[in-house]
Amino acid sequence: MKSSICVIGAGSWGTALAISLSKKGHNVRLWMRNEEQLLQMKKSRENIKYLPGVILPDNIKLFHNILHAVKDADIILLTISSQAVRETIKKFKEAVHDKQIIVNAAKGLENNTLLRISEVVKEELSQNAFAVLSGPSHAEEVCRDMPTTLVVASDSKSIAEYIQDVFISPKLRVYTNPDVIGVELGGSLKNVIALGAGISDGLGFGDNAKAALMTRGIAEIARLGQAMGADINTFAGLTGIGDLIVTCTSMHSRNRRCGIEIGKGKKLEEAVKSIGMVVEGVVTTEVAYKLSMKYGVEMPITTEIYNILYKNSDAREAVVNLMMRSKTHEIEEVVINKKFNW
Amino acid sequence: MKSSICVIGAGSWGTALAISLSKKGHNVRLWMRNEEQLLQMKKSRENIKYLPGVILPDNIKLFHNILHAVKDADIILLTISSQAVRETIKKFKEAVHDKQIIVNAAKGLENNTLLRISEVVKEELSQNAFAVLSGPSHAEEVCRDMPTTLVVASDSKSIAEYIQDVFISPKLRVYTNPDVIGVELGGSLKNVIALGAGISDGLGFGDNAKAALMTRGIAEIARLGQAMGADINTFAGLTGIGDLIVTCTSMHSRNRRCGIEIGKGKKLEEAVKSIGMVVEGVVTTEVAYKLSMKYGVEMPITTEIYNILYKNSDAREAVVNLMMRSKTHEIEEVVINKKFNW
Repeated sequence: MKSSICVIGAGSWGTALAISLSKKGHNVRLWMRNEEQLLQMKKSRENIKYLPGVILPDNIKLFHNILHAVKDADIILLTISSQAVRETIKKFKEAVHDKQIIVNAAKGLENNTLLRISEVVKEELSQNAFAVLSGPSHAEEVCRDMPTTLVVASDSKSIAEYIQDVFISPKLRVYTNPDVIGVELGGSLKNVIALGAGISDGLGFGDNAKAALMTRGIAEIARLGQAMGADINTFAGLTGIGDLIVTCTSMHSRNRRCGIEIGKGKKLEEAVKSIGMVVEGVVTTEVAYKLSMKYGVEMPITTEIYNILYKNSDAREAVVNLMMRSKTHEIEEVVINKKFNW
Repeated sequence: MKSSICVIGAGSWGTALAISLSKKGHNVRLWMRNEEQLLQMKKSRENIKYLPGVILPDNIKLFHNILHAVKDADIILLTISSQAVRETIKKFKEAVHDKQIIVNAAKGLENNTLLRISEVVKEELSQNAFAVLSGPSHAEEVCRDMPTTLVVASDSKSIAEYIQDVFISPKLRVYTNPDVIGVELGGSLKNVIALGAGISDGLGFGDNAKAALMTRGIAEIARLGQAMGADINTFAGLTGIGDLIVTCTSMHSRNRRCGIEIGKGKKLEEAVKSIGMVVEGVVTTEVAYKLSMKYGVEMPITTEIYNILYKNSDAREAVVNLMMRSKTHEIEEVVINKKFNW
């Protein structure tokens, strides 16, 4: 089965997915906003800025005109930053027909509205089927055919299975999941914890402290997720703890690297600038903080990171606060006690 | 509150805990089997073999006579390898009285009997209170006062809280948990997955593959744990996923380093020899494999690692098997589907 897929965005993730799809023989179009980048990529067949060292197969067509790019594609795959999703859809929606499937691969939430990307897409393209693609998957490894797992979630089982078939390959295993909310929240909110893990690393704390932060981190993400209607089991899976692990421990992660710079003492703007790409977690921290207020869910790690990024809190003090915040006689918070005679 | 604590075993973990306890002003005795090591440590006040570069505080008393060491201590803290626990208890049990509390900090299971260490202690010292100490805690960081979390589990809440008080400090946060079975299994079985994570690293696979392995790994540990009477929530906490993360991602982990050597092509014996310390995961893999049979729980990762270690399976093929084993149309296994209209 060959499909035509329009990849919106030629950052590292969009480029890596385009390469992976083109190797399966799909008809792949790769759209980018920046005309200079297009000219460079047409000449070199390499994404020098975002994915250097990897040659684009010949069957990937490069586009700058977004209406031409999306026209009659079976799938429109969004890989742009979450804050750019709505404005970009507005640019191409006149060329969209109802049978096209929208797949989002960006991991973030819309600022101001606090919406998940599926909700943004629903508002802008209410007639189109939607799926979200997530999981522990650094672009730098996927484009080099290193073994990777992904998850596709959709309200529609048949859509999820179709997208699974489109992406799956011997080195890229794709699983389906019915929990759109859980998959979207896990993928987005782990970037907040990755900033925190980076800050901990940047301050010179060790692996013990970071593992504790990650364990507590996924627990507070799951608490918010449940309050927002997700299935708690999703957070124990590839798009929850799996993606959290890869993001908090790999040097491929921009969010973690940005956190390291902050932990070493850089101001937020400098730290983001030094990464040279969008750091989704920075905006997501603010959205997550607002969501914790809206849903009345306690999120101590998110709150401390929000205070570091936006309220000039001292990073070392914040991490120490997190270690110290518990009462002496606290049982480990994830444990439900009713089973035991305590 | 000052207690007298006899630490049985002067490996890296025993030494690190002795240092941490002595800094709180406890009366600490450190027993070691090896007389040569004792003479060296008395002279240098440093554990050159297992924890080089860290000076032992003066108030740690070093022992070679095990009966003198345990006599009238409030707490006997076991930090020896799991396979040595029973024979070591036999050596000192004549000096034990009923009010002494046994705390185990070794992370393994007894071969042949397939027993947890709490069960071994129960058989040998049936009158004594017991607690297990676990969590994401590399000795190399704890002895240097780097922030660390621990969990103490006991059937008795008052014993757990007493042990918590004994160990807790500003940099070492200790939580209590009533689930002895879950804490013991999480701490032991993560070493099997750490061997696998090391093998994946040694083969040159990336962070994406390792994160998938870890996510699937904790899921199969939790399945076995539930079958053996543990609370599934424990595996989402510090002694479950927390310890798994720190063991699979840190170079401090002997189990991971042993796996890396195997992944690079070394035979098991060579790999273990190159680590120079006990690699608990090697025996635990066999025990875990037998437990999965005994309880009828599917543990694909444990089975593949067992086959690599004991049946000469090819490591690359085994990892590829794990990636490929799923049917195309599998929903992510952790998700309970009933909530969704699929």
